[in-house]
Amino acid sequence: MPTVLARSIRRIGIGLAVMSISVGLPLVADALRPEAAIGNASAAPIDADKAAAFDWVDRNAETMKALATDLWGTPELSFREFRSSRTLIRYLESNGFTVTTGAAGMPTAFVASAGSGKPVVALWTEEDALAGMSQRPAPAREPIVAGGPGHACWHNLIGPSTAAAAVAVAQFLKRTGAPGTIRVYGTPAEETGGGKDFMLDAGLFRDVDVLLGWHPSTNTRTEFEYSKAMAEMHFRFKGVASHASVAPDKGRSALHAVELMDAGVNALREQLKEDVRVQYVISNGGGEPNVIPADAESWYIVRANKHDEAADVVQWISEIAKGAAMMTRTQVDMRVDNDQPEVLPNRPLAVVLDRNLHLVGAPAFRDEDRAFARRLLEGSGRDPQPVSTDVVALPREPAQEAYSTDLGNVSWTVATGRFAVAPSPYVIAPHTWQAAVNAATAGLEAIPIAAKTLAATAIELFKTPGAIDAAKEDLAAVSHGHTYKLLTPPGRKPPVYREGASAQPLR
Amino acid sequence: MPTVLARSIRRIGIGLAVMSISVGLPLVADALRPEAAIGNASAAPIDADKAAAFDWVDRNAETMKALATDLWGTPELSFREFRSSRTLIRYLESNGFTVTTGAAGMPTAFVASAGSGKPVVALWTEEDALAGMSQRPAPAREPIVAGGPGHACWHNLIGPSTAAAAVAVAQFLKRTGAPGTIRVYGTPAEETGGGKDFMLDAGLFRDVDVLLGWHPSTNTRTEFEYSKAMAEMHFRFKGVASHASVAPDKGRSALHAVELMDAGVNALREQLKEDVRVQYVISNGGGEPNVIPADAESWYIVRANKHDEAADVVQWISEIAKGAAMMTRTQVDMRVDNDQPEVLPNRPLAVVLDRNLHLVGAPAFRDEDRAFARRLLEGSGRDPQPVSTDVVALPREPAQEAYSTDLGNVSWTVATGRFAVAPSPYVIAPHTWQAAVNAATAGLEAIPIAAKTLAATAIELFKTPGAIDAAKEDLAAVSHGHTYKLLTPPGRKPPVYREGASAQPLR
Amino acid sequence: MPTVLARSIRRIGIGLAVMSISVGLPLVADALRPEAAIGNASAAPIDADKAAAFDWVDRNAETMKALATDLWGTPELSFREFRSSRTLIRYLESNGFTVTTGAAGMPTAFVASAGSGKPVVALWTEEDALAGMSQRPAPAREPIVAGGPGHACWHNLIGPSTAAAAVAVAQFLKRTGAPGTIRVYGTPAEETGGGKDFMLDAGLFRDVDVLLGWHPSTNTRTEFEYSKAMAEMHFRFKGVASHASVAPDKGRSALHAVELMDAGVNALREQLKEDVRVQYVISNGGGEPNVIPADAESWYIVRANKHDEAADVVQWISEIAKGAAMMTRTQVDMRVDNDQPEVLPNRPLAVVLDRNLHLVGAPAFRDEDRAFARRLLEGSGRDPQPVSTDVVALPREPAQEAYSTDLGNVSWTVATGRFAVAPSPYVIAPHTWQAAVNAATAGLEAIPIAAKTLAATAIELFKTPGAIDAAKEDLAAVSHGHTYKLLTPPGRKPPVYREGASAQPLR
Amino acid sequence: MPTVLARSIRRIGIGLAVMSISVGLPLVADALRPEAAIGNASAAPIDADKAAAFDWVDRNAETMKALATDLWGTPELSFREFRSSRTLIRYLESNGFTVTTGAAGMPTAFVASAGSGKPVVALWTEEDALAGMSQRPAPAREPIVAGGPGHACWHNLIGPSTAAAAVAVAQFLKRTGAPGTIRVYGTPAEETGGGKDFMLDAGLFRDVDVLLGWHPSTNTRTEFEYSKAMAEMHFRFKGVASHASVAPDKGRSALHAVELMDAGVNALREQLKEDVRVQYVISNGGGEPNVIPADAESWYIVRANKHDEAADVVQWISEIAKGAAMMTRTQVDMRVDNDQPEVLPNRPLAVVLDRNLHLVGAPAFRDEDRAFARRLLEGSGRDPQPVSTDVVALPREPAQEAYSTDLGNVSWTVATGRFAVAPSPYVIAPHTWQAAVNAATAGLEAIPIAAKTLAATAIELFKTPGAIDAAKEDLAAVSHGHTYKLLTPPGRKPPVYREGASAQPLR
Repeated sequence: MPTVLARSIRRIGIGLAVMSISVGLPLVADALRPEAAIGNASAAPIDADKAAAFDWVDRNAETMKALATDLWGTPELSFREFRSSRTLIRYLESNGFTVTTGAAGMPTAFVASAGSGKPVVALWTEEDALAGMSQRPAPAREPIVAGGPGHACWHNLIGPSTAAAAVAVAQFLKRTGAPGTIRVYGTPAEETGGGKDFMLDAGLFRDVDVLLGWHPSTNTRTEFEYSKAMAEMHFRFKGVASHASVAPDKGRSALHAVELMDAGVNALREQLKEDVRVQYVISNGGGEPNVIPADAESWYIVRANKHDEAADVVQWISEIAKGAAMMTRTQVDMRVDNDQPEVLPNRPLAVVLDRNLHLVGAPAFRDEDRAFARRLLEGSGRDPQPVSTDVVALPREPAQEAYSTDLGNVSWTVATGRFAVAPSPYVIAPHTWQAAVNAATAGLEAIPIAAKTLAATAIELFKTPGAIDAAKEDLAAVSHGHTYKLLTPPGRKPPVYREGASAQPLR
Repeated sequence: MPTVLARSIRRIGIGLAVMSISVGLPLVADALRPEAAIGNASAAPIDADKAAAFDWVDRNAETMKALATDLWGTPELSFREFRSSRTLIRYLESNGFTVTTGAAGMPTAFVASAGSGKPVVALWTEEDALAGMSQRPAPAREPIVAGGPGHACWHNLIGPSTAAAAVAVAQFLKRTGAPGTIRVYGTPAEETGGGKDFMLDAGLFRDVDVLLGWHPSTNTRTEFEYSKAMAEMHFRFKGVASHASVAPDKGRSALHAVELMDAGVNALREQLKEDVRVQYVISNGGGEPNVIPADAESWYIVRANKHDEAADVVQWISEIAKGAAMMTRTQVDMRVDNDQPEVLPNRPLAVVLDRNLHLVGAPAFRDEDRAFARRLLEGSGRDPQPVSTDVVALPREPAQEAYSTDLGNVSWTVATGRFAVAPSPYVIAPHTWQAAVNAATAGLEAIPIAAKTLAATAIELFKTPGAIDAAKEDLAAVSHGHTYKLLTPPGRKPPVYREGASAQPLR
Repeated sequence: MPTVLARSIRRIGIGLAVMSISVGLPLVADALRPEAAIGNASAAPIDADKAAAFDWVDRNAETMKALATDLWGTPELSFREFRSSRTLIRYLESNGFTVTTGAAGMPTAFVASAGSGKPVVALWTEEDALAGMSQRPAPAREPIVAGGPGHACWHNLIGPSTAAAAVAVAQFLKRTGAPGTIRVYGTPAEETGGGKDFMLDAGLFRDVDVLLGWHPSTNTRTEFEYSKAMAEMHFRFKGVASHASVAPDKGRSALHAVELMDAGVNALREQLKEDVRVQYVISNGGGEPNVIPADAESWYIVRANKHDEAADVVQWISEIAKGAAMMTRTQVDMRVDNDQPEVLPNRPLAVVLDRNLHLVGAPAFRDEDRAFARRLLEGSGRDPQPVSTDVVALPREPAQEAYSTDLGNVSWTVATGRFAVAPSPYVIAPHTWQAAVNAATAGLEAIPIAAKTLAATAIELFKTPGAIDAAKEDLAAVSHGHTYKLLTPPGRKPPVYREGASAQPLR
Repeated sequence: MPTVLARSIRRIGIGLAVMSISVGLPLVADALRPEAAIGNASAAPIDADKAAAFDWVDRNAETMKALATDLWGTPELSFREFRSSRTLIRYLESNGFTVTTGAAGMPTAFVASAGSGKPVVALWTEEDALAGMSQRPAPAREPIVAGGPGHACWHNLIGPSTAAAAVAVAQFLKRTGAPGTIRVYGTPAEETGGGKDFMLDAGLFRDVDVLLGWHPSTNTRTEFEYSKAMAEMHFRFKGVASHASVAPDKGRSALHAVELMDAGVNALREQLKEDVRVQYVISNGGGEPNVIPADAESWYIVRANKHDEAADVVQWISEIAKGAAMMTRTQVDMRVDNDQPEVLPNRPLAVVLDRNLHLVGAPAFRDEDRAFARRLLEGSGRDPQPVSTDVVALPREPAQEAYSTDLGNVSWTVATGRFAVAPSPYVIAPHTWQAAVNAATAGLEAIPIAAKTLAATAIELFKTPGAIDAAKEDLAAVSHGHTYKLLTPPGRKPPVYREGASAQPLR
């Protein structure tokens, strides 16, 4: 593929050019003066270690993209990332990493390590796909498997880029003999369920000094921002089955309970503050219409800017559920599957990440990419919104974003730095079939950008222990005195599915 | 009005003709052999006393119709029949009745008496109109007062015909010197509220031997039938007011509670037995939309064939109300305004009534009446359904009807006989504007029919003490061992309105 | 199993005893005077042919029960009766039947024939189980597979008994050399989908003279009765997916459309006539709560005593669906999967069936069965309702029942006779887990009863051509002039599933 | 009342003190350099004219408060401010104003003028109260008239203070002989209906140069801010009445339509942007439950930051209404009663107002007021939120507030300046019974503050024609090119009520 090759060469060229300028700059001092970088999007100077990592990434870009395309082709739902995790584990092991599989009791969780001793810099990956998002890589809605899952949140890009970054960093550690460990945490069920918390509860992050990761988004930026807090839960209603025509009066409809609960929540929306989001689906709508449904279930996600507020709304919703059960003479059971505070931004890590993200730059899309994206977005009823071709400037104050992630609890425990890379020349909404198309086409261009940024940042941190200390101090200062009570039941276990079997978890 | 005059004469003629045949028949024995009359609609023989009463009714028919037209023109809501009750009281007093007004603490209730001693034969009247049914006597929807009340249940026909019958019977008692008392109970709020029960609780029916009455319906028949049991109640929800735009999160919406309760009840319909009926209106929908409503109220009627079943449904609905309050963090208060078991049919009284109803015959409508009724019913999307021109045969077993009345409790206490007269040549549904038109036009023809039937039946009962005994024995036998617990609060008081003032009761 | 053996012997004894009495009675004449049998439950006399069939059934009773237990253990959903149909086909083929598989384009439909020429007497079987009804044969709710299907409508009893009857009749035809064909129609998807109609449309019933079948029910009776008419349909709503927190305003919720449609239907219940039944489940409740659902689906069954009325209600519900789509800016597509008029009772066939059912008698349950049934029904909050130990008398007029079946269209085309056998000493509601337990325990006792009744009736019909003519004339007379327009799309195809694959049909 | 007297004296003292400092400052220039005042809350210098006005206000403070107390005692609903407007008209006429009553076809609208020629400075008043807010001036919920209206939005304070300011300004014009006209616009129905627009449409604001007014709020500030745009509308559903038990299937429920529409809107909330507000009440919930309601009505207010967005939401809601009508086979009619864009802030006027508001200062509450306010707010479940004792600084950019007013259209036509005065030492939410209490107690203290600020601002504008020009230029610049299409029907007429009659407007 000559076009792609040409690009890689161009990038190497830029990398080397910049490298020559940056030799000899006092990186350590810079990291300790994080405020220097605020506001002006000045790129970090490049040193030989970063340059070597960039070179490695560029040489392996096609491999990474092939890996991402492979993952894209076998989308797997949350907690069921069997094949995807094996693919990444194989890649990491073949590149010298030691891998613990089945971490924290989850068959698809893993921890891969290289190097040794302190500090421990960790990267995370996510591999799960979204239900109902199966889609051919074509600019029209065409599922590959009707109703099947699809990579509409770009997680297929995350694993390969992160694994590649980890390998490049491992090479740096090995080459330089620098002390320190580079890890990759393969975290299941980012979309629903939240695998990271089971790893956190199992103590797997205990010795991690800083955690780094990325996600495709609407632009290329350091995510110095709050996500929303969120809680995810199931409401199971239990009624009495009865023949729907012969004896409907003998039945107690669990489905009516679910619908009345939803009606109650829709009315509640009037009383919610602007930043609150509540969404639900009906995960069990009741068997066959011949029988008054004895079992029905809904699945909720509640979000708010702050965890306390989300918890208050969950409390009210649980009262609505009880009211619906009372109305229908059924029983209800609420199970909180995931409870995440807002992700905590870490300014020192944001400054280092931002420096390196500017060094790498945003993806440069081709005219063909632009044309394809416009076709892809046709029929959405809105003009395509172009993405900035530059890395967005680091904000003075943390922004407040509307998404939420399962990184919330981790970010209150480990100093966490995050960034985003735009996978498209025009904004593509996550969780749409267009995102699934993009994840197999132009979105692949985000992979080397992310890999280089992760690698350069990790290398800089290994070379600048003070920056790690600053990040940890910032976390300590910001989280000091904050307590929040999780809604998830203590001692809960992750769901375990059997590979190949479909619907129900074994546990 | 020559046409009407001709009719009266024709009726007198028939009356006299039949009378001549009936002289000397042993009526007492007949009443004691009620089963003899079953199935074959044989008219009772007419005697001189009945003939005299018929004659009086025919001579006063225009007066009664004028009275009915007057009542029609000033429709008054339940418990607010101020002018209507005064009109009837004046008529009865001017015809020699002694009247107790303000009976049982209700300004519009009265008991009028003539004659003396036992037995006591009582007739009842109803005078209240229906909200929103104001209508000109024209074959198209034209309210006289937009949103105003109207006589869409024909109660304007009941008072005049019943009062006239009572006067005719009083004349019989006076003329013959027979022992016995004829009474008229002016009962408020038949439509909603149920004034009869307050009179019952006050002991006003204690010495009544039999109770007789009538209502317009889809045909002319003795109502040897069960009505549905019914309970009527208000649910008042109390929330917290708040500015609907500035601070909706501080409000608690009583209106949402009402709507969620209704949604719960609509879902419940799936679990209701076929004979159950539940209907509601929203009697307070919440002020102005600038404010989250702190107050809202719904008004329910629950009906079922049997009282126990209605009570079960009320129980479930009260749980739905509590569920709705829980959902919305509001409070709810349920107040049962009226609770009536199914009306108990009384076979001996039905037999006597049926005999006399056949003697009188169903109304004979004119071609003009038929043409007008067809115009009136045009646009209903259904072909007009012609009414039988004959009195319908007495059924072998009591029928089960869908309506309910506030006669339920009374009928379990006093032996009660009822019949219906068709007010129209084609079926007109009650509680429609067409009924309000009919009540001022052809419906007036039902008045002399009803008056004669009531008078003849009462006269026959006064002359046949054994028939009264049989009726009382039937009640004792049928109601023996049945107990039912009323949902109305013990010791409750009727609402009292001030004449002229509009909305709220004083108490 | 000595107990069972003792029973079989007892039954044979009875059969023989009765047989000796019945020899020589003029069966033909009796069948032509069907009214003779009304009201008094006189058993038919038994002849040698019936006695032989009974003997065969008794000798094979254990085999049939084993077959039923086998089917019970592998419950399969509608249109997916792969294993069950194969089991029956194998049994019939091994007993000399010629079997056409994959009938009418349905992998699980079959037609098995023995004998030759006219008349053609056909029996039908049903094999599908119900979703969510998986249950151990124990007196407490214990699914074998959580959420899995189960035989809660006793279809596991139908196939073995019907196949056995067919074999017994085939032996009669072979032995006597009588002209005529005995057939078994293996009809898929009785519970939902209605496989019989695809076979009807394919002309597979064209040469059938009479059709006979049975079903477990609340007592043992000839089903001289109307079922309800019914229509079954799916509503698929199509919206726009969007991230539920980042851009909910960009989404269009198909799930809200489903819920609002259901709310509209629940409100509609107030306007439905008493005999109408409407039930729904939500067959697609919308993916994951991270995404505003672009796809959601509900599944409805509408029933009414008459087909026209059901069709009217379907029309209104389709308007509600459109209203819900309008409310949510989504699109909706209605697909009618099954449309059945009320099953037409056939008096001549009912008379013959009734005679033979009385000859066979209702199942005689043991004390252990009664004790177990009482335990099974404990906790239902109702006293167990004992089942008549006698065959219920044939009613004078056809009864009206609340169930519906996919026999509706067939019964308007082929003269159809049906009967019920009580599978339990106490009434067990169909479509409950208790029914699933019963279908593997005492319910097995219904099998020989049903097999004998089917066999005796078919034999009597083969020997009495006039009875067949009477049945056909009755159908012609009753259905004359009646037309009904089916709501199912013309030329529709049955859904086809792949064995082993789970959720979605291939077509 | 010595306490109050002491206060007035104290205020006069402050006024004079400040006056002595300010003599001789070049006010004109200042007004032309509006930006000078931004950010620092510097008070305007006081001149002799303002001082004279302040003196007059202080001397008449008790009269104004008595007037406000009088209005408070006779609360009148929108378009029915009969007595209230007469009270203000009488006051203005007795102080030399010429008054046009019945302005723009509204019995309760008036325009009062004094002075002559240009420029024309206009003030507006509002007099309507809120339904259901009747309340004694006591710290517990005690309606004076159950369900009656009450001054829970402080409009009783607006008329007296504004009229007093106008009189003070008229005296200035008369005394100085300065050219110019001071006007008071008595505008009906601010709460619902929007009387200002009818006056605008009638051309009554055509020659107005600037418009000034005030409203109590959560603090004392110049309202340099956007309100929300809003549209207010009624949805009338028309069904078919029928007896609710005898023939519910013949009815078409307009009430169900209203409830389903509301359910649709509650679901829609999920798709609304954060700034949108939708609220409704049910203004006709359907007569009596004996009848399927043929008529029902809901009353909606839609708000959004921008008018276009509000109009989009109204469009969607109108589709929901149509969907609800389709669901219930009823008809619906939407009538927009009021449509207001967001109020346009005017920077030059804000600067002048702010200068004078600082000159006057925020109300100084007493310890008793504070103690009473705390008692008043007890039981609200929230700690009382203290109000700033200073005038809040003018913001750099216009703020965005959540309320809306009927000033929207006027503010896009006439340069409009507005300010708020805190009526309480602790924040009291508008449209609560606590606000009604405050409006009769401590809230009266806001009157002289508002009167002085209005008078001083008007005087300064009369003396500084350039400031008026600047205000008009700012309006022209900001509104240039903006067009918005009103949803109200062209040529609509205001509703007209008859004084004393209650519910329905004559037109």
